[in-house]
Amino acid sequence: MKPVYQFPIRIYWEDTDAGGIVFYANYLKFFERARTEWLRSLGIEQHALKGESGGMFVVSETQVKYLSPARLDDLLEVTAQTTESGRASLVLMQQAWLTENGQRKLLAEGMIRIGWVNSQTLKPGRIPAQILEALQ
Amino acid sequence: MKPVYQFPIRIYWEDTDAGGIVFYANYLKFFERARTEWLRSLGIEQHALKGESGGMFVVSETQVKYLSPARLDDLLEVTAQTTESGRASLVLMQQAWLTENGQRKLLAEGMIRIGWVNSQTLKPGRIPAQILEALQ
Amino acid sequence: MKPVYQFPIRIYWEDTDAGGIVFYANYLKFFERARTEWLRSLGIEQHALKGESGGMFVVSETQVKYLSPARLDDLLEVTAQTTESGRASLVLMQQAWLTENGQRKLLAEGMIRIGWVNSQTLKPGRIPAQILEALQ
Amino acid sequence: MKPVYQFPIRIYWEDTDAGGIVFYANYLKFFERARTEWLRSLGIEQHALKGESGGMFVVSETQVKYLSPARLDDLLEVTAQTTESGRASLVLMQQAWLTENGQRKLLAEGMIRIGWVNSQTLKPGRIPAQILEALQ
Repeated sequence: MKPVYQFPIRIYWEDTDAGGIVFYANYLKFFERARTEWLRSLGIEQHALKGESGGMFVVSETQVKYLSPARLDDLLEVTAQTTESGRASLVLMQQAWLTENGQRKLLAEGMIRIGWVNSQTLKPGRIPAQILEALQ
Repeated sequence: MKPVYQFPIRIYWEDTDAGGIVFYANYLKFFERARTEWLRSLGIEQHALKGESGGMFVVSETQVKYLSPARLDDLLEVTAQTTESGRASLVLMQQAWLTENGQRKLLAEGMIRIGWVNSQTLKPGRIPAQILEALQ
Repeated sequence: MKPVYQFPIRIYWEDTDAGGIVFYANYLKFFERARTEWLRSLGIEQHALKGESGGMFVVSETQVKYLSPARLDDLLEVTAQTTESGRASLVLMQQAWLTENGQRKLLAEGMIRIGWVNSQTLKPGRIPAQILEALQ
Repeated sequence: MKPVYQFPIRIYWEDTDAGGIVFYANYLKFFERARTEWLRSLGIEQHALKGESGGMFVVSETQVKYLSPARLDDLLEVTAQTTESGRASLVLMQQAWLTENGQRKLLAEGMIRIGWVNSQTLKPGRIPAQILEALQ
């Protein structure tokens, strides 16, 4: 089984809305920050990679369930874990957790599918071997 | 069959990312703007409603497929249509379309589930009758 | 005196924060939407222009005073007016207004300086004559 | 002289725009994250404070100069330092720095004025003594 990568994310004013809680669309940002840091931990820097390989990851599908709200100043723990990895796309399971009064609560859970495209034409292509190896 | 509500949304710099295309998480914002205007067209103003009823809609689940990218200055047509409406939640199908050179292309498609909560306690409740009637 | 361009902007959930009001940084987005529509009204489309001229506008300075808050569902009127226009940069005065109970109230006022750069090197350059003429 | 607080901020896709650089309005978010962590380092948690004191900080004025662009994956160092502190408002000087090839470059510099308001009425008030003491 693949290990689970974990990354801490603090909630600021910019993340909240007038309901007093985190605006739901922002969990996609939190998941992306954690994915980016997971890739970085494997030696993959996306900006450099775009220059070298001429390609980039794009998100092709997202499914998120919002179970419990986060609020200003909360410190979330956001995870990333591959559940499928093919030559053209990866699927990750990602979660946002909050620990309060000693209890760890799942706030949101998502499935994110990412594909690889040529960064000029945006046409789909094969994920570079260098990345697939790093993901093993 | 329920009619489809349509709302125009222009793409600005704020909506794009360094890939040169619209940042995928922003489609959730576009869908929400269209939902809000659809509710407004039915006589439902969410800010006023929060004051009167003490409750508000929250998004509990989103599923989005990103099929083709939008770019700066594009003018999208974003739709909203209810596919399920119960006493505790609504499900909408929402799409973002772009017409280029006379061809109408589907850019993104989403399923959005929204529930009703007390705006103080955030506990789920029944959607007010006034809203369910407006949605008929 | 230069005429004042006006553009309506509706406030959605995405624009607000947990203080129950519009997040102040978002006025820069509203000002930019109004500037973009003002340029469009003069026949200038920034995405096409970037392709044709190899250049783009960048913001080099912003000063904003936040006088009174906007809330969910408010409909603002956002203005754009040039106060300086040179060969290398433009300065605009921009305001956000709200009309409530027949009274028009100034919510925020900004000075925005924009310059022209080569979109590859990001080095400053002269604003294309085509744009300076359109701005006369 | 007041010490300068420093906070690291990483650039993600969400922060960039189609110009290939960080969207200028986002520096206001970065400055706010650094301010929030600076307050936290002094023992001030804004969410808790809002509950206890019934008040909150609001931003009343911002002035930012954008000197050099940041890009995806850059790691900025964002500073916060008070330059004025009165009973009704604080003024901070904030900067965003990037170190590349051993050289530290100033990317953006801002002056941010924050005031204190009652969180229900939004009327201005005096900054609580507890905060002014922590800021000494």
